[in-house]
Amino acid sequence: MNPHDERLQAALGYRFGDERRLARALTHRSASADNNERLEYLGDALLNFVIADSVFAAFPQASEGDLSRLRATLVREEALAAAARRIGLGDFLRLGSGELKSGGYRRDSILADGLEAVIGAVHLDGGFDAARGVCLRLFAEELGNLPDPLTLKDPKTRLQELLQATGRPLPEYAVLGESGPPHRRSFTVSCRLADGQDDGTVGEGGSRRLAEQQAAQRMLERLRPAGGGDA
Amino acid sequence: MNPHDERLQAALGYRFGDERRLARALTHRSASADNNERLEYLGDALLNFVIADSVFAAFPQASEGDLSRLRATLVREEALAAAARRIGLGDFLRLGSGELKSGGYRRDSILADGLEAVIGAVHLDGGFDAARGVCLRLFAEELGNLPDPLTLKDPKTRLQELLQATGRPLPEYAVLGESGPPHRRSFTVSCRLADGQDDGTVGEGGSRRLAEQQAAQRMLERLRPAGGGDA
Repeated sequence: MNPHDERLQAALGYRFGDERRLARALTHRSASADNNERLEYLGDALLNFVIADSVFAAFPQASEGDLSRLRATLVREEALAAAARRIGLGDFLRLGSGELKSGGYRRDSILADGLEAVIGAVHLDGGFDAARGVCLRLFAEELGNLPDPLTLKDPKTRLQELLQATGRPLPEYAVLGESGPPHRRSFTVSCRLADGQDDGTVGEGGSRRLAEQQAAQRMLERLRPAGGGDA
Repeated sequence: MNPHDERLQAALGYRFGDERRLARALTHRSASADNNERLEYLGDALLNFVIADSVFAAFPQASEGDLSRLRATLVREEALAAAARRIGLGDFLRLGSGELKSGGYRRDSILADGLEAVIGAVHLDGGFDAARGVCLRLFAEELGNLPDPLTLKDPKTRLQELLQATGRPLPEYAVLGESGPPHRRSFTVSCRLADGQDDGTVGEGGSRRLAEQQAAQRMLERLRPAGGGDA
């Protein structure tokens, strides 16, 4: 047995019955036609389900929209790459010479895909329970520190929900002005409540959407002074 | 026990330990705040993984792109609704009066969501293996008659792959003309191979994209006479 792969299996907390499966999972498409792309497809689906299940159990009161957003933060490419780095996955990947020279073993996408492929390989080798165990160990840190699902919503969404919950009309956004050169435009947008109980807030940003989010955030702060907490 | 739900459990091939989970899975959001949306989220993730795993095993040579397309055809809304109809799920759903009047129990989206929720409820009640068993029974017909993954690709994609595999340059599409009134436009498009070994083909359709697909299909037929088979 390769002492190198031994270290990886210890980090995963899983010992392969057939190490050719692990070797395949570590082979990027730049290195061989016998690469890890099929295993990545399998591991991606498995990880998505395991994280969905964990998030479901962790927040018995959260809506399916909140659960979806929470899962998305855990399985996004940067989060997968961070988990891959914790077990030093980059040291074990087999890349083609081009990717090696350009430092592909440090790239988020290659690390994330490799991690999913390893999860898929564990499933093939040891079955679903073994693969789930690996997923839960890999993401123990994130799963132990899950954010409140409500904080994942953007300000416009939170403002809309707060207003709906209190029976008030939805906010209206209007562009007050644009400035700056074409490549560095700045937008100024107002957020007003249609029932006229408020003077409105103003936001600025490099796009209309960003300016609206800032205006919504300021309206939220006005409606819910410090300590108000989320709905 | 409700003899009504008894019939559904027989059709699923699964007997619930706690039938309140089944009742929840059958409750559409139009009927109650205690509805099936969270269970739908869970069942969706589980079904996606189980189908991904089945398709992976069924086609050991297929690329991850082919596997993804194949899975997508199995878990799309119409396919889920068809499986729901086979077990008569519509008869068991609990809908609000508005949805009842408008025949919601026949709608694809409500049937598909309900089916996913039932799968999620089986997982909660009996664990992953029980839920996987239900998925495999529900989709036994589709999984037993899987199409060749290659036939799921559109003609432009297949033509591009064939040309790449044989080292020829990619095809070029050009609009030759448009005709017809604005609401019923017809496009004529040519498909030519840049190495000049071919006179090109022509396609027509109600959009540029459709016309291109027809031209690509004709080029495919020319390059691969009957019986040629797929790459």
